[in-house]
Amino acid sequence: MNKIEKRLKDLNIVLPKAKEGVGAYKSWAIFSDNIVCTSGQLPWENDVLAYTGKLGKDVDVETGYDCARLCTIHAIAQLKEATGGDLSKVKQIIRVEGNIQTTANFYNHAEVLNGASELLNDVFGDIGIHTRTAQGMSSSPLNSPTLIYLFAEIEK
Amino acid sequence: MNKIEKRLKDLNIVLPKAKEGVGAYKSWAIFSDNIVCTSGQLPWENDVLAYTGKLGKDVDVETGYDCARLCTIHAIAQLKEATGGDLSKVKQIIRVEGNIQTTANFYNHAEVLNGASELLNDVFGDIGIHTRTAQGMSSSPLNSPTLIYLFAEIEK
Amino acid sequence: MNKIEKRLKDLNIVLPKAKEGVGAYKSWAIFSDNIVCTSGQLPWENDVLAYTGKLGKDVDVETGYDCARLCTIHAIAQLKEATGGDLSKVKQIIRVEGNIQTTANFYNHAEVLNGASELLNDVFGDIGIHTRTAQGMSSSPLNSPTLIYLFAEIEK
Repeated sequence: MNKIEKRLKDLNIVLPKAKEGVGAYKSWAIFSDNIVCTSGQLPWENDVLAYTGKLGKDVDVETGYDCARLCTIHAIAQLKEATGGDLSKVKQIIRVEGNIQTTANFYNHAEVLNGASELLNDVFGDIGIHTRTAQGMSSSPLNSPTLIYLFAEIEK
Repeated sequence: MNKIEKRLKDLNIVLPKAKEGVGAYKSWAIFSDNIVCTSGQLPWENDVLAYTGKLGKDVDVETGYDCARLCTIHAIAQLKEATGGDLSKVKQIIRVEGNIQTTANFYNHAEVLNGASELLNDVFGDIGIHTRTAQGMSSSPLNSPTLIYLFAEIEK
Repeated sequence: MNKIEKRLKDLNIVLPKAKEGVGAYKSWAIFSDNIVCTSGQLPWENDVLAYTGKLGKDVDVETGYDCARLCTIHAIAQLKEATGGDLSKVKQIIRVEGNIQTTANFYNHAEVLNGASELLNDVFGDIGIHTRTAQGMSSSPLNSPTLIYLFAEIEK
């Protein structure tokens, strides 16, 4: 068991099966030989969304944090698939793009997205520290509170 | 006529002239030698937008699909310019970033963006299958229902 | 003093200290050897936001322009740090991602983001001309009217 898998185990995280893209798109791509980017990751628990609704109205910040964390678990599952199953090939997490579905008067995007960022730090250590976007969306696919995109550099 | 141009012809698509960026920005750039990224592509028909308004209120899903498709035709025109006129140099469509202008209660981003994704599959085949973002925007430049950004890898 | 620093001086711009990422993320990353990307840059003046509110209601286009410009000054400060203090190592500004916090009926994203684009042109000249995204957000971190992300290619 490599270091990353051990950390996942210590965190009691069992990676789900990487969700496949639906139809005309796919869940991850590799460009420039070793840059992985994912499509949007939703907070799936099996085949239903664990959370729906908007921050600032239906969903509180703590729940938003959990939601961003769950999206990121799915993103790590995609990354594992993109590395051929070996997460120790990850050289750095480059970027987390974090979309949050909100009302017009929500300002605490940072705390919600820490659910993504802190997990990546816990799992990947120093190479898990990344750049981040924080976007307050008017609407989100399937009414999901958060949507996470991941960019990572892996070994060639 | 190369394979891509033939597919465009079979789909009865005549690529428009690539719209130029206005003033201080440009319509496409190449980085890392062979990664093309475009600025936002709008649903132009000649010099007017073919569609305006919001999904969930002014624009139905079928029209949104057409709108995303039209934006993508403009994106392919940009990509053609970036390849020096030879779309057979495209190695893969990496990513479609799909912004949809919506009301607060619209959840069917996927179906709208299939207008972009399915066209890229039809034109480019297997190398046209891409990652995708799906973003519900509060407002959009010029009141456009959709805005499409394209990332592609081309031959060096 | 190199050419870029001279232009900043001619524009009476004193770059602020690059703001550090808070906690679990960082302000910039380098991938593929020489591509810099930044996290979101806010319109800080010292430790407070110079502007808050939404375009289309609280903030007019001229103020939005100034706000985008100020965000971009912070982005250039990040880029300077990423180049080890030498902005003459910048080969091209690849992309500006411009998020604008708006009401549902705001359409003039372009003019606001020219505050970012024109500054990059003034400072970097031809290599400052970039691709651009223009996104109308429902909400923004800390109620900031604009949020700017920068991608640049630097010398290896």
